[in-house]
Amino acid sequence: MNQKPRILVTNDDGIYAPGIYALYQVMKELGEAYVVAPDSERSAVGHAITLSDPLRVQEFEKNGAFFGWAVNGTPADCVKLAIKAILPSPPDLIVSGINQGSNTATNVIYSGTVSAATEGTIIGIPSIAFSLTTFKKIDFSTSAKIAKIIAEQVLEHGLPEGTLLNVNIPPVEFPEIKGIKVTRQGKTRFEESFEKRIDPMHRTYYWLGGTKLILDSEEDVDDVAIMNNYVSVTPLQYDMTDYKALEGLRKWRWKL
Amino acid sequence: MNQKPRILVTNDDGIYAPGIYALYQVMKELGEAYVVAPDSERSAVGHAITLSDPLRVQEFEKNGAFFGWAVNGTPADCVKLAIKAILPSPPDLIVSGINQGSNTATNVIYSGTVSAATEGTIIGIPSIAFSLTTFKKIDFSTSAKIAKIIAEQVLEHGLPEGTLLNVNIPPVEFPEIKGIKVTRQGKTRFEESFEKRIDPMHRTYYWLGGTKLILDSEEDVDDVAIMNNYVSVTPLQYDMTDYKALEGLRKWRWKL
Repeated sequence: MNQKPRILVTNDDGIYAPGIYALYQVMKELGEAYVVAPDSERSAVGHAITLSDPLRVQEFEKNGAFFGWAVNGTPADCVKLAIKAILPSPPDLIVSGINQGSNTATNVIYSGTVSAATEGTIIGIPSIAFSLTTFKKIDFSTSAKIAKIIAEQVLEHGLPEGTLLNVNIPPVEFPEIKGIKVTRQGKTRFEESFEKRIDPMHRTYYWLGGTKLILDSEEDVDDVAIMNNYVSVTPLQYDMTDYKALEGLRKWRWKL
Repeated sequence: MNQKPRILVTNDDGIYAPGIYALYQVMKELGEAYVVAPDSERSAVGHAITLSDPLRVQEFEKNGAFFGWAVNGTPADCVKLAIKAILPSPPDLIVSGINQGSNTATNVIYSGTVSAATEGTIIGIPSIAFSLTTFKKIDFSTSAKIAKIIAEQVLEHGLPEGTLLNVNIPPVEFPEIKGIKVTRQGKTRFEESFEKRIDPMHRTYYWLGGTKLILDSEEDVDDVAIMNNYVSVTPLQYDMTDYKALEGLRKWRWKL
């Protein structure tokens, strides 16, 4: 690539989040970076898009300078709107994150961070989702450094059509990271429970809670790589067809 | 199954929608049916879950009688809450719909209707999503009849672990339906555009619009089956790993 690559930066924690600021700083070192992100937190929005409300875009400042565009929509909305209405021309790369909290295993399907990268991939642009696997306050310098390394690789190699990368980074200092592992999506899931409470108006409400059920042990699984202090890089695609099940189902009595 | 099966009925168009009422009527003929559904439309919410707000449940009446529980959450929230906090015991089957509008091809990943069935499958319960592929006003009697036939098959055969069914029904009368086809998820997608408008306060806003790009022609693809007046039954799973891409990616220079 002779020209500087154009990079779209988005997230689901919102344009105020420290993770997107850290990601933007390193993307600026790789090319022309543009931030288009939700105006507030949209975590666990899944692959939502906004159909029935108008989308609004506002210029957003940080430290007294223009930082990016804030959109009253989801991460997928931001990607669509950036490409079709905000940026002067389509980007060469889309990066989403750095999310605070892991997007591994079954959590992938709830992830707004991943959905932005999926949206980019559907449109035909190489896209990467980055998550730091902790909810604790931590600085993003290590994960930003890693994001830069992985983005460089993608700018160099490109990605196969229909493939996005889902990157999860363990919450440790750079020297403690053992390396980068290409992984597959695990089966770990939350066993949910609801805590029932009564509000001051005597109405019942519920809080979602739960415990993580680790259901994998193979080293090439996303959560296992993270536990072993590896950066997990999972190629994802969005054809959800269960090809294994097709033949069996075709044998059922499908009579009307 | 000796006892009457217990069936959870949900949707993403909301508990007021005619599609869920039609689905409930036929599920009552198959077993004990329970309705737990969003209190308002949640279309295109994707696989969202509500983490930062409390969930509330209200009893909802229809035609003067108790109809079901309305939840201020997403379809995935409804399934979690129904199983963990509302129903006396887990259901034998979860049905979601009947959605107004198709959930085929890349739309599958935006679909709240499908996400309810995915959630049920993660929890380990056979689950089916039903959609009627039109936005026009139409009566749901044909699609409800078909939903009943397919639900009966699933109650008889069960579903493989991790597999859900995504059913799309063409918007024609029963005699015009050619049959049921087991299909795969197609590549058809929307080429989006945004219409820019100015509101009375002189602020810019955008409406999402677009045209459908039909990118498939094979008969076993969801949208093609629908165009040919077949009911489309697609088995889905939620491991999004791009297995084809793993080997290639492992050859990159993954140095820190």
